[in-house]
Amino acid sequence: MTMQIIRYVLVGLGNLGRRFCEVIAEKDALLRERYGLELVLVGAADSRGAAYDANGLDPVRVAQIKRDGGSVGAYPGAGRAGWDALSLVESADADLLLEALPVDLSTGAALGLGCMRAAMRKGMHVVAPDKGPLVVAFRELHDLARANGVQLRFDGTVAGGLPAINLGVRDLRGAVVQRIEAVPNLVTGYVMDMLADGVAWEEALGRARAEGVLEADPAWDLDGWDAAAKLVILTNAVLEYPATLDDVQRAGIATVGAQALVAARQQGQRYRLLARAEQQSDGGYALSVAPTPLSPEHPLGQLGRKQMGVVYTTDIYGVITAIIDEPNPIPSAMTMLRDLLDIYG
Amino acid sequence: MTMQIIRYVLVGLGNLGRRFCEVIAEKDALLRERYGLELVLVGAADSRGAAYDANGLDPVRVAQIKRDGGSVGAYPGAGRAGWDALSLVESADADLLLEALPVDLSTGAALGLGCMRAAMRKGMHVVAPDKGPLVVAFRELHDLARANGVQLRFDGTVAGGLPAINLGVRDLRGAVVQRIEAVPNLVTGYVMDMLADGVAWEEALGRARAEGVLEADPAWDLDGWDAAAKLVILTNAVLEYPATLDDVQRAGIATVGAQALVAARQQGQRYRLLARAEQQSDGGYALSVAPTPLSPEHPLGQLGRKQMGVVYTTDIYGVITAIIDEPNPIPSAMTMLRDLLDIYG
Repeated sequence: MTMQIIRYVLVGLGNLGRRFCEVIAEKDALLRERYGLELVLVGAADSRGAAYDANGLDPVRVAQIKRDGGSVGAYPGAGRAGWDALSLVESADADLLLEALPVDLSTGAALGLGCMRAAMRKGMHVVAPDKGPLVVAFRELHDLARANGVQLRFDGTVAGGLPAINLGVRDLRGAVVQRIEAVPNLVTGYVMDMLADGVAWEEALGRARAEGVLEADPAWDLDGWDAAAKLVILTNAVLEYPATLDDVQRAGIATVGAQALVAARQQGQRYRLLARAEQQSDGGYALSVAPTPLSPEHPLGQLGRKQMGVVYTTDIYGVITAIIDEPNPIPSAMTMLRDLLDIYG
Repeated sequence: MTMQIIRYVLVGLGNLGRRFCEVIAEKDALLRERYGLELVLVGAADSRGAAYDANGLDPVRVAQIKRDGGSVGAYPGAGRAGWDALSLVESADADLLLEALPVDLSTGAALGLGCMRAAMRKGMHVVAPDKGPLVVAFRELHDLARANGVQLRFDGTVAGGLPAINLGVRDLRGAVVQRIEAVPNLVTGYVMDMLADGVAWEEALGRARAEGVLEADPAWDLDGWDAAAKLVILTNAVLEYPATLDDVQRAGIATVGAQALVAARQQGQRYRLLARAEQQSDGGYALSVAPTPLSPEHPLGQLGRKQMGVVYTTDIYGVITAIIDEPNPIPSAMTMLRDLLDIYG
């Protein structure tokens, strides 16, 4: 078997980027034997610096630096403190960009967008679990990929490691999708379950924060922005309907009172922050995100604390539900491998 | 948009073939507009005859002939009574074969295998919801496709319209799949639910037969051959493990007594004919099909009468469950469109 060498750059070394580095090292033999691929991490960047080595960085070492609280800018012999992700992408000699930056809509996802644009203009394929650029510029990025003859994959943007987008985009071809329902966010379900158990709001948030599942800015999850962003990506990708965040009627979990949560529990129902796209009589879609009581018979009515899911209601493929049980962030991180193998496998 | 014309032959006009003809006619405008494809049915065959017209047969008319109990051999101006599927495939000028023959392992799936081999040797792509040839000759057919530079798709062989194979083959790339659990057969669950309700065995079979969901030879479903065949295909396709029917430890639903079914129901469990592939310490897989009591917490523990599902337990993508609600055979039939669009879309 001829070995194909893939030289890639990884920007963003938070939870997903670091986990990817840890696991990809363990997959080295499998990727060579099963797919004939040799992956070479030539560049990596975090918010404080970057490293580049045409002969390859060691992903295990990159992960170790991050676990120790350092910056990859201190990578021995290859790191440069203060060098940023965009400069790295622009100067790197590589085939593929993995864009795993933290979501940053406050700047219009400026850094991620810049990296993705720069990579594609250089002829690099792009894999992005970062929702930001896709929410802000879905059409532009797709057009740019086509114009440059490169591929753009983003299966990790919705519902962690669940191939929700792949399933919708590939396996529903030929169908009219009448409805999408998704529970794409974990922490909101966890918090609502605690509230239904009688835990007070501040105490519930405190526990979620202590476990590291609530972001520094909790509004992103709790007010439904995260679910809305995922719904916008699903709607653009699967329904090919050009929705934006402004099109989503959005209610966060604080809009449902603790009493309602407790009462629903007593009736055997479970609240989840449900994202919906519902086809209208004109063929368009109405989008909403709202805390919704689900009966046990609903396809997503039994989701546990670590489970996310999506339901596609179609004209010719019945009703298809997909659910992931994701005990840790590894599946989310490894969507980058899934996407990479979709491009090269 | 340039229109790509796909000339296809459909052999097998039973439940799936006939439904495909009915629905594909309604999809004509969508296929042109969304994918730039014009599908032309140039040939069709059933067990009594065949029809061929290079200018195209009308799928609606073909379906009507079958609904009226006739043979496509009587198609006005194009039909030939007594002409068989293989002769049609060998003589047709076409790009694609849809092989929707009834499963026939008594002959080693001879007719289906013959049609698929003939088509691929002529350079035709093949789409097959028929399990027979894949169970009998999985490796040979894949090698033949590669040698002839054509594509072979068979997403409809397992769990009806659920993209169980597509999800496993494409979206689990890079993973080690530690376990597959599937409930890929509807009628066995339906019968066991009736038995758990206290309905007698003969009465339960009679009802299933009257509703048209039990084959003429009920052993195929009830003794677990159907589930075993699907497990063999999943194992070969997703796990790339060369299993055959002989490798499946198989128990039919009659091996569980009515008392056990009733007792399980009382404990809140539901029996389903569960197909399992479990990784062994040597890296191989142990395959089994057996009636199994599932608790409500099992990912497939709440399947209703019209629902099938599959669970993939993986090392890096968590546990992924996919379930279909399939109220009629249309999703199963339309896997042929899904596969076709996977080749051409």
